[in-house]
Amino acid sequence: MATQPSTTLMANAIRALAMDAVQQANSGHPGAPMGMAEIAVALWGRHLRHNPANPHWPGRDRFVLSNGHGSMLIYALLHLTGYDLPMSELRNFRQLHSKTPGHPEVGITPGVETTTGPLGQGVTNAVGMALAEKLLAREFNRDGHAIVDHFTYVFLGDGCLMEGISHEACALAGAWKLNKLIALYDDNGISIDGKVAPWFIDDTPRRFEAYGWNVIPGVDGHDVDAVDAAIAQAKKSDKPTIICCKTNIGQGSPNRAGTAKAHGEALGAEEIKLTRAALGWTHEAFVIPAEAYSQWDAKASGAALEASWNSAFDAYQAAFPDLAGEFSRRTKGELPASWAQTAAEAIAAANAKAETVATRKASQIALEAFTKALPELLGGSADLTGSNLTNTSSTPAFRLEADGSSNGGRHINYGVREFGMAAIMNGLALHGGFIPYGGTFLTFSDYSRNAIRMAALMKQRVIHVFTHDSIGLGEDGPTHQSVEHAAALRLIPGLDVWRPADTAETAVAWARAIESKDRPTALLLSRQNLPYAPKASLDDVSRGGYVLAEPAEVGLKKKAQAVIIATGSEVQLALHAQQQLAVQGIAVRVVSMPSTTVFDRQDAAWKKAVLPAGLPRVAVEAGVTAGWWKYGCAAVIGIDTYGESAPAGVLFKHFHFTAENVAATVQTVLQG
Amino acid sequence: MATQPSTTLMANAIRALAMDAVQQANSGHPGAPMGMAEIAVALWGRHLRHNPANPHWPGRDRFVLSNGHGSMLIYALLHLTGYDLPMSELRNFRQLHSKTPGHPEVGITPGVETTTGPLGQGVTNAVGMALAEKLLAREFNRDGHAIVDHFTYVFLGDGCLMEGISHEACALAGAWKLNKLIALYDDNGISIDGKVAPWFIDDTPRRFEAYGWNVIPGVDGHDVDAVDAAIAQAKKSDKPTIICCKTNIGQGSPNRAGTAKAHGEALGAEEIKLTRAALGWTHEAFVIPAEAYSQWDAKASGAALEASWNSAFDAYQAAFPDLAGEFSRRTKGELPASWAQTAAEAIAAANAKAETVATRKASQIALEAFTKALPELLGGSADLTGSNLTNTSSTPAFRLEADGSSNGGRHINYGVREFGMAAIMNGLALHGGFIPYGGTFLTFSDYSRNAIRMAALMKQRVIHVFTHDSIGLGEDGPTHQSVEHAAALRLIPGLDVWRPADTAETAVAWARAIESKDRPTALLLSRQNLPYAPKASLDDVSRGGYVLAEPAEVGLKKKAQAVIIATGSEVQLALHAQQQLAVQGIAVRVVSMPSTTVFDRQDAAWKKAVLPAGLPRVAVEAGVTAGWWKYGCAAVIGIDTYGESAPAGVLFKHFHFTAENVAATVQTVLQG
Repeated sequence: MATQPSTTLMANAIRALAMDAVQQANSGHPGAPMGMAEIAVALWGRHLRHNPANPHWPGRDRFVLSNGHGSMLIYALLHLTGYDLPMSELRNFRQLHSKTPGHPEVGITPGVETTTGPLGQGVTNAVGMALAEKLLAREFNRDGHAIVDHFTYVFLGDGCLMEGISHEACALAGAWKLNKLIALYDDNGISIDGKVAPWFIDDTPRRFEAYGWNVIPGVDGHDVDAVDAAIAQAKKSDKPTIICCKTNIGQGSPNRAGTAKAHGEALGAEEIKLTRAALGWTHEAFVIPAEAYSQWDAKASGAALEASWNSAFDAYQAAFPDLAGEFSRRTKGELPASWAQTAAEAIAAANAKAETVATRKASQIALEAFTKALPELLGGSADLTGSNLTNTSSTPAFRLEADGSSNGGRHINYGVREFGMAAIMNGLALHGGFIPYGGTFLTFSDYSRNAIRMAALMKQRVIHVFTHDSIGLGEDGPTHQSVEHAAALRLIPGLDVWRPADTAETAVAWARAIESKDRPTALLLSRQNLPYAPKASLDDVSRGGYVLAEPAEVGLKKKAQAVIIATGSEVQLALHAQQQLAVQGIAVRVVSMPSTTVFDRQDAAWKKAVLPAGLPRVAVEAGVTAGWWKYGCAAVIGIDTYGESAPAGVLFKHFHFTAENVAATVQTVLQG
Repeated sequence: MATQPSTTLMANAIRALAMDAVQQANSGHPGAPMGMAEIAVALWGRHLRHNPANPHWPGRDRFVLSNGHGSMLIYALLHLTGYDLPMSELRNFRQLHSKTPGHPEVGITPGVETTTGPLGQGVTNAVGMALAEKLLAREFNRDGHAIVDHFTYVFLGDGCLMEGISHEACALAGAWKLNKLIALYDDNGISIDGKVAPWFIDDTPRRFEAYGWNVIPGVDGHDVDAVDAAIAQAKKSDKPTIICCKTNIGQGSPNRAGTAKAHGEALGAEEIKLTRAALGWTHEAFVIPAEAYSQWDAKASGAALEASWNSAFDAYQAAFPDLAGEFSRRTKGELPASWAQTAAEAIAAANAKAETVATRKASQIALEAFTKALPELLGGSADLTGSNLTNTSSTPAFRLEADGSSNGGRHINYGVREFGMAAIMNGLALHGGFIPYGGTFLTFSDYSRNAIRMAALMKQRVIHVFTHDSIGLGEDGPTHQSVEHAAALRLIPGLDVWRPADTAETAVAWARAIESKDRPTALLLSRQNLPYAPKASLDDVSRGGYVLAEPAEVGLKKKAQAVIIATGSEVQLALHAQQQLAVQGIAVRVVSMPSTTVFDRQDAAWKKAVLPAGLPRVAVEAGVTAGWWKYGCAAVIGIDTYGESAPAGVLFKHFHFTAENVAATVQTVLQG
């Protein structure tokens, strides 16, 4: 089928906007938008169900530009179809506080569903979105009421396919039969270093067949009808689909198309002139003819789509009022009215029981209560379920029914795929309807680190359960022992990090994580048992750092001469040191600091009350010392080397994590 | 073909040692060693060319246990074949300071080629080793003198294949036609969470065909002859080979074989008794019959293999004395005698030219000299060659000749595969003969972080070139702007991090990185131009932190009242602030601190001389502030949020990185 004239106009409008905006900014990537223009016409012009007037309508299809450097493609599409993204914003591409940043950012631009740029993560977010759709469909749809029923479309390029995370994500999409996921691959054979042949020989269709995908190979990416037909076919598949579109990067540019030069720099005034001529595009920069606007306009069709969904939802609401209410609550990300009581009770129960268990077990105890109360809690583990203890009696394993639908399970076996898990959780949170949490060993937070960062940048409520949080994991040795990870996670802006000391602190950490609607949380939990630490006020725990034990607790009537700050498994060392020092008449205060990130946000009065001026401070944590000096410590007891393979108890002694050493350090500081 | 009785004995010796050592430690993973015992007999008993008396002989085959949790497999093999690993060490499995840590660690156990455990990285190291072999063969072999000619074998499991990095590594192995790489896949269908079917449905043979591998599917992993035949076939292939071996995890254990229970815990006394009975193994724990020892013994054959290689090398040496000398130098990892002069000249030249260029360009200038002098420098980039500037006139791109051999190129296009690049570089360094370096944007150090950590843990000379090191990259926005990464890398024990301020500091950083035989280095380099900073002594730069400019430099005769500490692009701000303060009669010292990690290793006298007691300190770096408090700073100027998309100059002003703000901060500090 030949491309129709109108589709040429539509495609060239994208090309013109992309090349002109990049030229204006003298920065950006024209190649992908120009090369994918016809693919965009096919998807956005003929299939995508969206409403420019309401980018948050729950029934919309999701669209992810995984090759986020081609941001002008989505900005052009949002502008042309009628979103609140005026031409002034396109003229302001890549400028401070514009709605058109260098890479698409969720929360800044209406219609952008996720922040992309770090390659491979967009498609992984899309897998998470499609999983959310499948799970919510099972949970909320009823016969004749398919209120959850939309597609997730993703554009991706060679870079996304080279990244390892694409393997993790796409293997899971195949295993989960995410048939509503449709990927359009911009197979242009070019990456930044040039023609990819010497370093990228993957037979991508065969690779995706190996994952159990529906593969539509060899589509001409410049033939709108061919792409349209492929999408239509994909929508009928019972598997996720990848449509392999052969394209020419920078299509339309006489001298740069098909070369790496088209990828990441402005074409230049002269080449833009030549491109205009070659395309027959006679309009000035940032001028789009009315005909193109009218062909692209999705406002009326979008309003109709949403109206149709709204009336379907009204019927659903009439038939299933409770379910409809729950659906609305879930999609808004609001906690149920009973939550405050649920949280308070679980925390109080943990405190009252005062059990000696590992904090990973304390986490499971808290989760047992919270997963029962919150159906939106969606658990999982990167193949360490029995170690991370992320599963509860309310969260049976997610499996497929014979027809490929969800069995209603709420615990995801992600397999050994930490990075994939983290970015899929980002997609689940972005989709809405879930508060995802997932577990692995703290050391392997390294594998998923950039996805954790992306959750923080995107302000998404994603909860990472990182167990085996120190040398306390013992015999597995230095490859598996976190040393620098707690400190390194605390550096990520917008991420809350908790390292609780006992059951009560763990329950508080979970509650605060669940309530943190606009930030991700990392919970660092012990493998080994930790005794309960009696505390005067449970409320104080939520401040991130608080006075756990004053000298009076160990029978001293005088005021503290020093403060010991400790986290997690080392709080017990601090308490024992406090006792030992008390025998010698030395009065110290023990501050438990389960979350430095939360403590750092407290007001000055709280900080001063916990860490009074003039009192020398000693911090103890089984990790690198570097992060503790900001609290004005006189000494920090930590470990600035790698661990060793040995039983945990042996290691704590070997690395001088003993009450005796803490006490001696305090004495030295006081004598200092 | 039936398994011969002797191979049964050999295999069961492994099983017995694995189950007994794990039982003794009450910790470890018996399942993989027991399941792979016959595979090990086929490879170690019939193919592997190694000499237990000399684990460092350059002509040996390399063996990698990528599923490192099965460490008792390699310990058993090393013990049985005659390495210096007595039974006392096996009895001491997973105990402090034993030679049998929980996961195999290079440098601790003779015969262990790389540290494994973090899944997927072992096979990636193996790809690096096989690449090293291919490159060295091209460089050193001459007609009739194939002194570089060995295989790299790797054992891997489901976990390695699920990890994303396996995609990156194996795609590259296919593209590079690493025909000397042979992987043996322990296809037991079990991972920690249970039978993998619900989360791992990959058609692995098809996947590897897509990468261009030679695939030998459906091999019975308990049939030694079948595995033997597959290995023999693999050795003839012109592609890398994966041999898919169907196995039974924990084979031999009547009640645990084939279950996740066999994976990661001791069998228990009762089940061990039953297993002994089932195997017909009548010996006590840690008792191996002489017949098994004699069948496994590789001391004589190994000595003969090495002797044969040595005599071949003697002939080579006679024919090509210079090449032979160079080969010996390279494999020992020694720098040429001329190196000190080369380094000094390059540093002096950079200093004398005093150019204003980006430090990524300064890096290329230094590399231009160093790659010319050091053929072992093997460059590369994760598809950002023109941005990282890792290529030089001495390092043409690595490509394949028609016969699949190397073209002699020395710059690797790794594609968009940061983690793969990092772990392949670890393999190149471990193999010997190369000092690998590779580039990407600093933000994407997140993707490769655990491989950087592994290089540090393994004490390998690997150099990471991380460009675009701050908000100074400008328009690409927060996804691409490093904020926390410099601080986060400095937390990794054993890693040196340099963030040089100009051409001279960059040359010094490169020279010190190249000389750091037992540690990796990360070089953090600017996208934007930085002016040269005049310095009194070039030698001081190597101390990591030094006095760059005293008040006298800006015409003040009095002693400094404060110290400004700065790194990289912010050094110029510090110098300008110094000038502005001088106008007001305020005398400050500017300390350039290109490497905090190196500075921290200096003696107390040097530290005190640079940062005198009593002088207030202000640090400035375009990154998170957390790391600077350890230097007792009164104020730190940094950025504790994400960046924005805008031109670099706009961003520096927006985030208050101006000389005016630095000067004002010093004044505030001085006013107390």
